[in-house]
Amino acid sequence: MIYFDNSATTKPYKEAIDSFVKVSTSYFGNPSSLHGFGEKAERLLKQAREQMANLLGVKSNEIYFTSGGTEANNMAIKGTALMHRSRGRHIITTKIEHPSVKETMDQLQEAGFEISYLPVDAAGIIDISILEKEIRDDTILVSVMHVNNETGSIQPIEQIGHLLKYYPKILFHVDHVQGIGKVPLDFYKSHIDFCSISGHKFHGLKGTGALFIHEGVDIAPLLSGGNQEKKKRSGTENTAGIVAMAKALRLTMSEMNNKLEQLMKIKTYLLNELSVIEEVMIHTPEHKSAPHIINFSLKGFKAEVFVHALEELDIYISTTSACSSKHSSASETLMAMGVTEMTAKSAVRVSLSYENTIDEARYFIESVKKTIAQLRKVMKA
Amino acid sequence: MIYFDNSATTKPYKEAIDSFVKVSTSYFGNPSSLHGFGEKAERLLKQAREQMANLLGVKSNEIYFTSGGTEANNMAIKGTALMHRSRGRHIITTKIEHPSVKETMDQLQEAGFEISYLPVDAAGIIDISILEKEIRDDTILVSVMHVNNETGSIQPIEQIGHLLKYYPKILFHVDHVQGIGKVPLDFYKSHIDFCSISGHKFHGLKGTGALFIHEGVDIAPLLSGGNQEKKKRSGTENTAGIVAMAKALRLTMSEMNNKLEQLMKIKTYLLNELSVIEEVMIHTPEHKSAPHIINFSLKGFKAEVFVHALEELDIYISTTSACSSKHSSASETLMAMGVTEMTAKSAVRVSLSYENTIDEARYFIESVKKTIAQLRKVMKA
Repeated sequence: MIYFDNSATTKPYKEAIDSFVKVSTSYFGNPSSLHGFGEKAERLLKQAREQMANLLGVKSNEIYFTSGGTEANNMAIKGTALMHRSRGRHIITTKIEHPSVKETMDQLQEAGFEISYLPVDAAGIIDISILEKEIRDDTILVSVMHVNNETGSIQPIEQIGHLLKYYPKILFHVDHVQGIGKVPLDFYKSHIDFCSISGHKFHGLKGTGALFIHEGVDIAPLLSGGNQEKKKRSGTENTAGIVAMAKALRLTMSEMNNKLEQLMKIKTYLLNELSVIEEVMIHTPEHKSAPHIINFSLKGFKAEVFVHALEELDIYISTTSACSSKHSSASETLMAMGVTEMTAKSAVRVSLSYENTIDEARYFIESVKKTIAQLRKVMKA
Repeated sequence: MIYFDNSATTKPYKEAIDSFVKVSTSYFGNPSSLHGFGEKAERLLKQAREQMANLLGVKSNEIYFTSGGTEANNMAIKGTALMHRSRGRHIITTKIEHPSVKETMDQLQEAGFEISYLPVDAAGIIDISILEKEIRDDTILVSVMHVNNETGSIQPIEQIGHLLKYYPKILFHVDHVQGIGKVPLDFYKSHIDFCSISGHKFHGLKGTGALFIHEGVDIAPLLSGGNQEKKKRSGTENTAGIVAMAKALRLTMSEMNNKLEQLMKIKTYLLNELSVIEEVMIHTPEHKSAPHIINFSLKGFKAEVFVHALEELDIYISTTSACSSKHSSASETLMAMGVTEMTAKSAVRVSLSYENTIDEARYFIESVKKTIAQLRKVMKA
């Protein structure tokens, strides 16, 4: 099996699953319980928080555990809107955000907020000067993703942060779900107030995620209750999942240090090989893009057909994002980049992890060529 | 170790953990992915949904997976408030709800909703006639828990449902987190619109839960995004956790069928033995209470001191609920029942599971007596 759909989800590290089992079996106490058995769980939670904070280069009191990336994004954006709506109801984001940001914005718009959607260029990247022009007195939040989940294009987060430094009342949210462990990001240097990550995108377990909230920044909670996570996110902590996520983050960060070059080599190989295939049109920009995502159209083929044809060869890729793969509508991200609807509908995404090898990439390229030839034959028949 | 803190959290079934590991290892695909590897995960999700629906006596399209009980409660209440605020802004609940309901109500009150809190009698049970009097034209929701998490008292859910049948515009939410697998509840017969459960309270894993939403009832989503769970709860599904929860529910329901009598015997034994101890004042009502929760005060002792003293004997009980166990304030539930603040501050909770035995109960009673005697000595010294 060649699994090239790592932006949809990743295979959990064995070590992460082992940690999960150990904590669930031996330390299942409720971290909020007064007795020592609860305290043991609380201690594990504290260690995981410190470990993750260290790996992310922030303070442990800035890490808030969530059920995943979607919750982290909703929590940051809706929490800010709810908290600061009396100060302003204007939010700036981009046209290419993940559905968990986009749909949240739509919901806020219905609730009376005004949302400005920044355009992107052909490489899928925003223009800082346009962002600056959109800033108003009643702007309370700017939300821009780091790495796009469909194309891998990287937004200039640090530059945005430097611009927003001059607008201290505007909070800055970054969806870092696709970037973590692949494209380094300095939260402090980029003046980020909120940063979302998701455990299952870096070989942790589904149902885990975290939101970084810069010290001193406050939000209204989305989940109220027993006042866990300093009242910002209530609900019994998923200690086992959190410990597993901390472990997965450590392993991923270590892989980033050791294997990033190899990953980039695979990407370059794929880009080079794909670019010489006549039917292929690559959407992922050569520069300013993440090392693990390649998006390309297969002119004349429907993306679904191609995905299923590769599946016959035990290769798993995706149409666009997993979240929208079952809708037949064309990718809004690609169309925002100026890709025509027809071309967008034939777009597929290859997304790698550090587990993938150059041999898999070679087999993939052969398979793409073979599949194109076969599909051509079928279409002519 | 005698674990009598099952209302805080339970030890996961080995079978639930095994299912989690199997799914995380072999079926880690994203259920939203188009390819067959994603479809396998989607099939597991569908099976788990059907299994849970069967066990709960509802339709599978009425089960929505969440990250836990807190999210389920927030989702039902805030989702209704957001959806129906133009129709009305009045909500009725009780004075003894779990923090995830109470704090949600507080947040809605701040946002302009009016909340009526029903009083309870000395047994911790509401009066239907008072509920009826509180109903107004602008009432959109009634939220009443089934089994109280601190005392085990059971609310007359079916009667409330019958009353609300005459008010078809009012939605009915039941927090069933403590009742599931212990006190049967017919969702349809009780005319319930929303019902919350939490996986880790019935030997499933933390980070899992579900909200039953009656067919045809709509809410605004709390977590927006990729439109999972029919747009009502976005975010990549925690397939492994959900499969484990379905398995745990099946095992718990089977234990309810086989071991409920044994559990009731243990409870009766504990109540009888505790009631003859001079210092003990039992708060859990003899009738209309769940088979697994006993709440009692130890006159003259601080609850924390007692919990820690029992811990020395490897017995784990709780002060009140886990969610508020680290605050020294007296239980609002007990005070709503007319218990004085001083007595409430000496209240502890014993909460059982089907795993507990009569021998453990005997050892517990001996230990309570011994601990009282020892603490008396210390206090006199």
